[in-house]
Amino acid sequence: MQTIKRLTCFLLLFTLLTGTFCQAAQIPLQWVVGSKKEKTALPEKYIPAQVPGAVQLDVAKAEKYAPYYFDNHWKDYLWMEDMYWEYKTDFNKPALASGDRLYFFSKGIDYEFDIYLNGEKIYYQEGMFTYVSIDLTDKLADKNQLKVVIYPAPKDPTALAADRNQARESVKPAVSYGWDWHPRLVPLGIWDETYLETRKSSHISNTLFEYTLNEDLTRADLTVTLSGRELTGKNYRWKIYDPSGKEIANQTLKAEGDQFVARQTLSGIELWWPHDHGKPALYRQVLELLDNQNQVTQTITKKTGFRKVQLVMAEGTWVEPVIFPKSRSVAPIQMELNGRRIFCKGSNWVNPDIFPGIITEKTYRDLIRLGVEANFNMFRIWGGGIINKESFFEACDEMGMMVWEEFPLACNNYPGKAKYLATLKQEATSIILRLKQHPSVVMWCGGNELFNNWSMMTEQSLPLRLLNSLTLQLDPNTPFIMTSPLFGMGHGNYVFRSQSTGEEVYQLMKRAHNTAYTEFGMPSASPVDIIKSIIPENELWPPKPGTAWETHHAFKAWEGETWLMPEMLASYFGPAKNLEELVAQSNIIQAEGYKAIYEEARRQKPYCSMALNWCYNEPWPSAANNSIINYPVRPKPGYNAVKEACRPFMASARLEKFAWKEGESFTAELWMLNDVYQKSQPQKVKVYAIAGDQKIELLTWEVKSLAENTNLAGPTVRFVLPEWDVDMFTLSLEVEGKPQYNSQYQFVYRPLVIKKAQGAPTMNL
Amino acid sequence: MQTIKRLTCFLLLFTLLTGTFCQAAQIPLQWVVGSKKEKTALPEKYIPAQVPGAVQLDVAKAEKYAPYYFDNHWKDYLWMEDMYWEYKTDFNKPALASGDRLYFFSKGIDYEFDIYLNGEKIYYQEGMFTYVSIDLTDKLADKNQLKVVIYPAPKDPTALAADRNQARESVKPAVSYGWDWHPRLVPLGIWDETYLETRKSSHISNTLFEYTLNEDLTRADLTVTLSGRELTGKNYRWKIYDPSGKEIANQTLKAEGDQFVARQTLSGIELWWPHDHGKPALYRQVLELLDNQNQVTQTITKKTGFRKVQLVMAEGTWVEPVIFPKSRSVAPIQMELNGRRIFCKGSNWVNPDIFPGIITEKTYRDLIRLGVEANFNMFRIWGGGIINKESFFEACDEMGMMVWEEFPLACNNYPGKAKYLATLKQEATSIILRLKQHPSVVMWCGGNELFNNWSMMTEQSLPLRLLNSLTLQLDPNTPFIMTSPLFGMGHGNYVFRSQSTGEEVYQLMKRAHNTAYTEFGMPSASPVDIIKSIIPENELWPPKPGTAWETHHAFKAWEGETWLMPEMLASYFGPAKNLEELVAQSNIIQAEGYKAIYEEARRQKPYCSMALNWCYNEPWPSAANNSIINYPVRPKPGYNAVKEACRPFMASARLEKFAWKEGESFTAELWMLNDVYQKSQPQKVKVYAIAGDQKIELLTWEVKSLAENTNLAGPTVRFVLPEWDVDMFTLSLEVEGKPQYNSQYQFVYRPLVIKKAQGAPTMNL
Repeated sequence: MQTIKRLTCFLLLFTLLTGTFCQAAQIPLQWVVGSKKEKTALPEKYIPAQVPGAVQLDVAKAEKYAPYYFDNHWKDYLWMEDMYWEYKTDFNKPALASGDRLYFFSKGIDYEFDIYLNGEKIYYQEGMFTYVSIDLTDKLADKNQLKVVIYPAPKDPTALAADRNQARESVKPAVSYGWDWHPRLVPLGIWDETYLETRKSSHISNTLFEYTLNEDLTRADLTVTLSGRELTGKNYRWKIYDPSGKEIANQTLKAEGDQFVARQTLSGIELWWPHDHGKPALYRQVLELLDNQNQVTQTITKKTGFRKVQLVMAEGTWVEPVIFPKSRSVAPIQMELNGRRIFCKGSNWVNPDIFPGIITEKTYRDLIRLGVEANFNMFRIWGGGIINKESFFEACDEMGMMVWEEFPLACNNYPGKAKYLATLKQEATSIILRLKQHPSVVMWCGGNELFNNWSMMTEQSLPLRLLNSLTLQLDPNTPFIMTSPLFGMGHGNYVFRSQSTGEEVYQLMKRAHNTAYTEFGMPSASPVDIIKSIIPENELWPPKPGTAWETHHAFKAWEGETWLMPEMLASYFGPAKNLEELVAQSNIIQAEGYKAIYEEARRQKPYCSMALNWCYNEPWPSAANNSIINYPVRPKPGYNAVKEACRPFMASARLEKFAWKEGESFTAELWMLNDVYQKSQPQKVKVYAIAGDQKIELLTWEVKSLAENTNLAGPTVRFVLPEWDVDMFTLSLEVEGKPQYNSQYQFVYRPLVIKKAQGAPTMNL
Repeated sequence: MQTIKRLTCFLLLFTLLTGTFCQAAQIPLQWVVGSKKEKTALPEKYIPAQVPGAVQLDVAKAEKYAPYYFDNHWKDYLWMEDMYWEYKTDFNKPALASGDRLYFFSKGIDYEFDIYLNGEKIYYQEGMFTYVSIDLTDKLADKNQLKVVIYPAPKDPTALAADRNQARESVKPAVSYGWDWHPRLVPLGIWDETYLETRKSSHISNTLFEYTLNEDLTRADLTVTLSGRELTGKNYRWKIYDPSGKEIANQTLKAEGDQFVARQTLSGIELWWPHDHGKPALYRQVLELLDNQNQVTQTITKKTGFRKVQLVMAEGTWVEPVIFPKSRSVAPIQMELNGRRIFCKGSNWVNPDIFPGIITEKTYRDLIRLGVEANFNMFRIWGGGIINKESFFEACDEMGMMVWEEFPLACNNYPGKAKYLATLKQEATSIILRLKQHPSVVMWCGGNELFNNWSMMTEQSLPLRLLNSLTLQLDPNTPFIMTSPLFGMGHGNYVFRSQSTGEEVYQLMKRAHNTAYTEFGMPSASPVDIIKSIIPENELWPPKPGTAWETHHAFKAWEGETWLMPEMLASYFGPAKNLEELVAQSNIIQAEGYKAIYEEARRQKPYCSMALNWCYNEPWPSAANNSIINYPVRPKPGYNAVKEACRPFMASARLEKFAWKEGESFTAELWMLNDVYQKSQPQKVKVYAIAGDQKIELLTWEVKSLAENTNLAGPTVRFVLPEWDVDMFTLSLEVEGKPQYNSQYQFVYRPLVIKKAQGAPTMNL
């Protein structure tokens, strides 16, 4: 609710394109909205509009629609994407001091729109990520009416299906056109903070805070690029506070025109680090514009973190093309931050709401905090979704979470047409200039799976060449990759056991050889109460395709019986007797599956340098999904498993398979994983098999000291499975005196059913 | 000698940055040159300088040095690279009509230099590819002295060896620092046309002719960007002549300032094609600047060809990453020109002279014509060498030869340092703007083998991101790749039989699976007379390492006994008795090896789409080299073999190996190769084995009609090798009534030495 509160306050701090301003007066607006079929028509009626928000939510509220998340009611909302939407607000001309200016300001209007003041069209824009700032002063009457007319959702008319293909000629995020975990619901409306604002005649409109570091990362040459109105000859103060809050710079300077660059140097700087490698140190920069009496008329604040970042080739990747005809090796994806090679553990972030207009700072912060607690140091902001609001990046800066930021391109062949390229250039420029000031944004990526054969873009595609060019020009010190995956990187698999080959994740990961696992999934059912809140009671049991289960992604979402997979679960656990049991089974599989992948990816270090699962969160309540956090911010059991698998230092086992039979020789390879840049203490690891109340000691491993950021392979446990009266058993790795390093793995156990019939045992099938 | 003649004429047509001008008066200059250790010192003496040329050649002539190509005399020249060189010329102020201007103009000064007029420094530049144009008028005295002070050859002082690594912080071509087929000789000096020039007060200084094509390639929207001096309000004529010479446009326009863009549209255009796919149609554009009496005061002429070009994914390349963890496929390298997928056959072009200053238009034209005659449609201008002079590209435009143009980066890790990036940006901008006006330049490439592990650049390297960005901004309709090879493409092998594995080119190519073979070599010895002109008589026989043979690349050039390989030759043919026999053996191997590679690459179409051998020509007389043309323009026997292997339509055989024994079962797979965009006639192919005067018919293949641009695999010939009294035999494919499609392949034959000793045959080893 943070966002709403802000808008109702006057004279509050607020963030403009590139900084936080004060001493400008914000004037909130009350909006109504109405739909119409033609751009030039008038709506038949207007209803109250929440700003920021989405027209769909306004209609639902005013017209008492059933919630879009229950049953298949999302379909009731579909008609709205093809309408024009007219936002309207009336306001009296505010009392302006001599020379003061009145601006209309918006951080986001989704997606294509005209703006009218008193019936006159004063603005047009395509693109939801470029802030709008219009000086209204000279056009004001005593009573004024402002209209924002939003066009129907963009759709490529040549798209063969009503799906993401329709998004391929626009910079509208493709996910809302429908995905295997997102219903088709295409938001439209004013989606970020929007208000009137009075400013002094002399004011700063834009700031861009940048820096370069010297070779040994001890000195920063800072610049701030200022532009504004009537600045020439004005004095301003530039103050800098170090991470402890101490003022370390304070100089008064004279503006060198309406657009100019100011410079200063800081020595002995403290670097910004992700939370698991150091402190995310932030400096606070303050600009104060002064009037002729040396009174502060405007204050701009920006937090800055200093870091050097590169993508380099991981160890072992240069030597791969050894024979003729020679060819190049894999692409660089090893993150090197402040000279340190960092193994990136994290997750793919998707929109935390179908309607970005109602995402709050609190939601962002709660989700990011859970990421930090899960030992994640990176979110990949997947290109199917939106570019997040400023509060997201501010929180990542503060909490030391690295961000892999994608542009809004996903799974399409975006064209080299002039119109699309112009919109992309405008939007990408806005995005880069805003985000480059956040130390957390450590890499740019063109978008999701653009080189895959369902997208068919290549290095030759002009949109990707354009993004490469823009990121180089505007943010040369942050790496750019065209898409994920690049050659050598892996996306997938997304299930515990392949429906075509029967191969489990354990076997798959063992033969996988990737530089980075930047997507891999493991579905589970949502908690029972969530399921009951979205599936009609009469469809609840048993779950079936063709019901609300299917449109909530339990069936036919991706392939086969994804994401619920009841048949696979039954093959391991026997048929579930009820919903509670099914959900429990599903969550065991997700937990064990994700542990297997994260830990194997870590064992493949240093060749492998990233493990980011698909996906972190979800935009609405699903019935089943690969996410580890349910909508809006509710961790699944799988979240805890992932958290364990990402501990910087831990015992780990490389496993063979999930289901074992009595008499089989169980094996597991023991490892110690160390992502810490510190030599470890020697440890003693005891390994047990636990079945019911039996705990059998299998092995003791005397672990030598591990070098910094280096894993160690240990012995292999071998153990013939005895006769047990259990359905499952556990492999337990226990580190003497250090339970925080312990690890446990669960398995299905199958006894021999007929043990001594006719002299020879018959195996249980 | 064309270049020299030009310079001695007044009022001649000459080429400026982007066009051909007339009505400006060229004034040649007589230069002297002298060396000095310090920039500020004066040379002890001056010697006559040839311009364009190189200081090394001037010194050699004046001081009577032994030729650098004989024995090891190139070493005598080494000291010159570390000196400053002062070019000096005196001239009287020419009689200038009222308002006329006098310019100093140079198309190339190598590499870093200051220019002084009458003792005053008036110019500085780093970079040999950016034209220099300086208005001297306001600084002229009655008697004037112009000096060009050239700095020592650039060398990265941190380079560990005196080799190409020294070139890694400059835009100086790396090859002259030494390569496995190029001695270390680093040219310095004024290397392209350079003169004084009088221009009218109102004149055009730069033109840029561009166009865009409509979707179906029938209409061109032309622009010309003009800039100059005192143009505002002047009239000019823009005339266009079609490829037949007919005037198809003639309009008189008014200049819209000193820099502006003029536009017009041509419909029903004829496209430019490479010679083997159509006519290289060129339109002639003429700009005439008019004075107030409508008299022409300046004429600029430019030839323009219209073509659309893309690099696309070849057939079969999208489906390769079929299993999880999924990853992307190979990079696009299939050339698509005017909508047609073209199999590129050609060669890697290297500097035709160690000293680019003395390369003539005739040399260029003779070499390109031989390429056309060899059925080549593409030259890869290898990034270790120079950017060629205008006459090279004019000839390629006219003769329909496609050019893959690399920037001057090769086999180094060029840094992301500000100074290097600034020089690269300046040089690349000049190169792109000049070359983009040539239809023959169908692709840009960052440079040679930059992603290989001896270079260690990646997609993240700022110089490559910069080149991608500049080519996109300045020439978006021509594709750019960062380097060769990209993943999926092959460089190598460079010998007939691997010295480590013993594998021959036949086996290697059969298991190779590449989208493009953009380098592959097959060495041979130079003709005996050339060898005698470079190796002292006492070292001629037998060839040995440690002699002039070695510095002329016969030994230790690359690995083992490259490029002469006498031991490998002896293993096939027995020890050569003399130089003549050795040279003959070597040229058989080159011919058969190159045929095997070109034809196998073609058989791998459509997955494979390029075959470019290493290399075409050479910069000095070598003793042995992979080139198919000896210095300066003398085809080897291998040239004729390659010419045969590149015929658009031909019979071909996939072979097993080179040396066969009596009694072995000889096999060869028959193919018809068709690169023609036309359905072929049915053919009858008869296959023979020829040994001495015996000709044995093996098979008749009734070949059905081949689809356009499609090959056809046929039967496999099998044949037990009889007892013959020969050393070699031939497989002959003879197309009935169409001898121009015939193909022949040679093999070594080894009889059973002891045929019936003690009842059982013993094989000849």
